[in-house]
Amino acid sequence: MIVALAGGVGGSKLVEGLAHLVSPPEDLVVVVNTADDEEFYGLYVSPDLDTVMYTLAGIVNRDSGWGVEDDTFEALGMLGRYGEETWFRLGDKDLATHILRTRELRQGKSLTEVTAGLTRRLGVRARILPMSDDPVRTIVQTPEGEVAFQEYFVKRRASDPVVGVRFEGIDRARPTPQVLSALREAEMIVVCPSNPIVSIGPILSLPGFREALREAQAVKVAVSPLAAGRAFKGPTVEMMQGLGYEASSFGVISLYCDFLHVALIDESDAELTPRIQELGIRVVVRSIAMRTLEEKVALAKAVLEVASLGRG
Amino acid sequence: MIVALAGGVGGSKLVEGLAHLVSPPEDLVVVVNTADDEEFYGLYVSPDLDTVMYTLAGIVNRDSGWGVEDDTFEALGMLGRYGEETWFRLGDKDLATHILRTRELRQGKSLTEVTAGLTRRLGVRARILPMSDDPVRTIVQTPEGEVAFQEYFVKRRASDPVVGVRFEGIDRARPTPQVLSALREAEMIVVCPSNPIVSIGPILSLPGFREALREAQAVKVAVSPLAAGRAFKGPTVEMMQGLGYEASSFGVISLYCDFLHVALIDESDAELTPRIQELGIRVVVRSIAMRTLEEKVALAKAVLEVASLGRG
Repeated sequence: MIVALAGGVGGSKLVEGLAHLVSPPEDLVVVVNTADDEEFYGLYVSPDLDTVMYTLAGIVNRDSGWGVEDDTFEALGMLGRYGEETWFRLGDKDLATHILRTRELRQGKSLTEVTAGLTRRLGVRARILPMSDDPVRTIVQTPEGEVAFQEYFVKRRASDPVVGVRFEGIDRARPTPQVLSALREAEMIVVCPSNPIVSIGPILSLPGFREALREAQAVKVAVSPLAAGRAFKGPTVEMMQGLGYEASSFGVISLYCDFLHVALIDESDAELTPRIQELGIRVVVRSIAMRTLEEKVALAKAVLEVASLGRG
Repeated sequence: MIVALAGGVGGSKLVEGLAHLVSPPEDLVVVVNTADDEEFYGLYVSPDLDTVMYTLAGIVNRDSGWGVEDDTFEALGMLGRYGEETWFRLGDKDLATHILRTRELRQGKSLTEVTAGLTRRLGVRARILPMSDDPVRTIVQTPEGEVAFQEYFVKRRASDPVVGVRFEGIDRARPTPQVLSALREAEMIVVCPSNPIVSIGPILSLPGFREALREAQAVKVAVSPLAAGRAFKGPTVEMMQGLGYEASSFGVISLYCDFLHVALIDESDAELTPRIQELGIRVVVRSIAMRTLEEKVALAKAVLEVASLGRG
């Protein structure tokens, strides 16, 4: 069994590659960040869960990496006519997901149960697990004050300097039993190339999660989300700098040094190898770009081959 | 002040005509049936309120008489992909209304407050009042058993013989204070040409409503929904026959005989005049078809002129 820890778009690309290789499909378990979740119009929206689900269902919008392909925005336009804010671009097809999720949560199901149901109904056989059934919300601290993550990321287009990040509710949240069980049973745990602060960060910050990771018998591998100090997507570099971390593959991997065995970094970062090795982490250098399905599958294959290197 | 009692499509046509004549617009109050309301996907849908609201906002689908013009069905298609039933055709723009209504009801607002807010935000100045803030549900009794109204009407296309109708919850429901106040203050109360059994019926069946109607000082006028024994739309004739009523304008007007002063019936029903007069009700004979805006306004004008005839 392979367990992948993932946020949204970047993580989903590697997950898609893994899904092409792992057999049976149920042996791929994706533990997904839920600290980006937000209510819009009374509907429970879980952007990272949806991105992973739509990607594995083969219906993700390939241009943006999120949302449903060929979606329309008629409901959103009408919400605007009612005077509602419409900066979070919920498509019509996408709304169906949020409507059903909200209904089922209100019926008393857990987010884990709801996600399993939605996923199954879209024909996805890999298991998608929310990191927690408890509410956690990423709050971004800017010089002008605190803003909720989606407001920072979408409404304000990640344009504010970030001076801090906190995960509201994290102290009372727990990883789900399903997540802890997957970590125990995994042969390999893969930290996807997602933002280490706001995508992987909340997962690792769940009380008990890092301990469970350290105790897990699996080979633990991370793929860097940066190449030559630049992110493939999103404000990873700006956030790391704002929080005082080195905005490089070394900086990212150092955040995982208490549990990681192997790091996959880009060829452009080859010179960081000795510094990462000094953290006691093996390094595999190769191209980590995932522009095409072929590149996603090739990177996933490289990740899986790492398992044969062992924990060395 | 003019108070109109209305169901969905038929009633909305006369309401549209009245809205072109009543000034200031706030002097038109529409009391709307809510016994057709239903939850779909956890969203609170109020078909008659919406039809009246969309009509007065000028955005109703003119072809069907209900729903929003130029609407699309992408969310519904996706709900189908999730395996949900999709026989109730909720459009994408229409969904925005249900999403907002549901959110605001869950926030603890009454249906009256929510409707006032939605209506105002669409620029409608006439007052649209749900008949009650309490849940009432029309149940149709067929030879095969009971079905909820929307299932009978939409899913089964009104194809079952109707042997009975009951309004679940009606004994515990009350007209709202706003409705009772409007009845007291009205100069004219108009029963729109809506289905007398399932559209006007629930309104009149609310405990205290008929008494309030009888006590109201207004001139009370009804427009028949039938002409020559045929309905302009919907299963009015079949329902009346199934319940043992004469399926004619006489049969409809007789349901209102305890409070009505004047009946407007179609030229094709002129021979019913003496029988209606015997109920103590004045009769105005004219064309009651409302195929065009001009016909709607002309019929509304005829209704308003009735006021000058007094309670006679």
